[in-house]
Amino acid sequence: MPENKSKVKRIPKRGFYNRKEIYSFLDTQFLCHVGFVHKGYPVVIPTMYGRDKDVLYIHGAAISRLLTELEKGVAVSISVAQVTGLVLARSAFHHSLNYESVVVFGTGTLVADSDKEKALKIISDNVLKGRWEEVRKPSLKELNATKVIAIKIDEVSGKKRDEGVSDDKTDYDLDVWAGIIPIHEKYGKAIPDSQLKDSIPLSKSIKNLYK
Amino acid sequence: MPENKSKVKRIPKRGFYNRKEIYSFLDTQFLCHVGFVHKGYPVVIPTMYGRDKDVLYIHGAAISRLLTELEKGVAVSISVAQVTGLVLARSAFHHSLNYESVVVFGTGTLVADSDKEKALKIISDNVLKGRWEEVRKPSLKELNATKVIAIKIDEVSGKKRDEGVSDDKTDYDLDVWAGIIPIHEKYGKAIPDSQLKDSIPLSKSIKNLYK
Repeated sequence: MPENKSKVKRIPKRGFYNRKEIYSFLDTQFLCHVGFVHKGYPVVIPTMYGRDKDVLYIHGAAISRLLTELEKGVAVSISVAQVTGLVLARSAFHHSLNYESVVVFGTGTLVADSDKEKALKIISDNVLKGRWEEVRKPSLKELNATKVIAIKIDEVSGKKRDEGVSDDKTDYDLDVWAGIIPIHEKYGKAIPDSQLKDSIPLSKSIKNLYK
Repeated sequence: MPENKSKVKRIPKRGFYNRKEIYSFLDTQFLCHVGFVHKGYPVVIPTMYGRDKDVLYIHGAAISRLLTELEKGVAVSISVAQVTGLVLARSAFHHSLNYESVVVFGTGTLVADSDKEKALKIISDNVLKGRWEEVRKPSLKELNATKVIAIKIDEVSGKKRDEGVSDDKTDYDLDVWAGIIPIHEKYGKAIPDSQLKDSIPLSKSIKNLYK
């Protein structure tokens, strides 16, 4: 594996390599973009994930092409990013985004049948903590129809910008509004299934989303 | 290039291939995840983009490793995804996400100096339409410090789920709340730069964000 693959070279102050910090960002997100090489070509696919220790888990239908490829033990790169604001400067050049992102390099392996349910719970917990305990657990048939891939995190780096505008000295005199437009992701009002029985309230895991 | 690389095989009804529909989704987003093969390994990096006709543009510092790699004319895969809701079923197995996503396969080429400013405007317009006209345009020095890569979209496919819960018949009797939790991305209140002159109001492009 090439060395220092994950070193942030551009604007090094924005890079972070502390696994604690990286993992705490990964644990706030659940959508990742998984890249692998197929017949010499790159393929990037979005999917949800969960993390436990130094492993990311992704899952899907047993017949999924992505997973069938990854279980062969191929190298993967995984990107997770969150944009938190538009950085609007007085010059086009100094426009930017505020964001946090993590790039992972690792290798996929198939999760054994005996560990599958535990791995699925890790993904479920990462999307909505506590939901797993509230719902019907997978049947053997459902587990058999599901494949889970574990991706050991071999190398990883984070990048973050969370600052104001930085313009050229001579541009501060321009009559241009400059500043930050924050971007927030919010959970909207829960929409009950049309067949939901009247007496059933929102469960605890869902209520926690709005706290 | 392998044929049918971009065919959605899992749950085919969720796939869409109409470029008009695909491009209209791409034009609502500005964050992409670019994958390429470097020394045999996959690398996926998040970056912003803009689209014009069948080309995606990405940019960065002239010395960026990503762009220096892509200008060699290597194959790239680009993933763009938006999660629009949590699909909370009565069984773990039927949990899902509502989302829209597009996967692009293409080839990167370096944008010539003479076309660079136009390409940068395309990216800028995609992030915040109208901003380009409000700010100081790039100087020659700034243009020289910037590299732009054009990625011709050779193959592309979209995938979308925008539905309610679909549970097994026997699960509808369970006392579990089921339904959709929508996820919205919103622009927060503009935060003026600390050095902004008092008399300068929000510009038109920014006001349009809140409409």
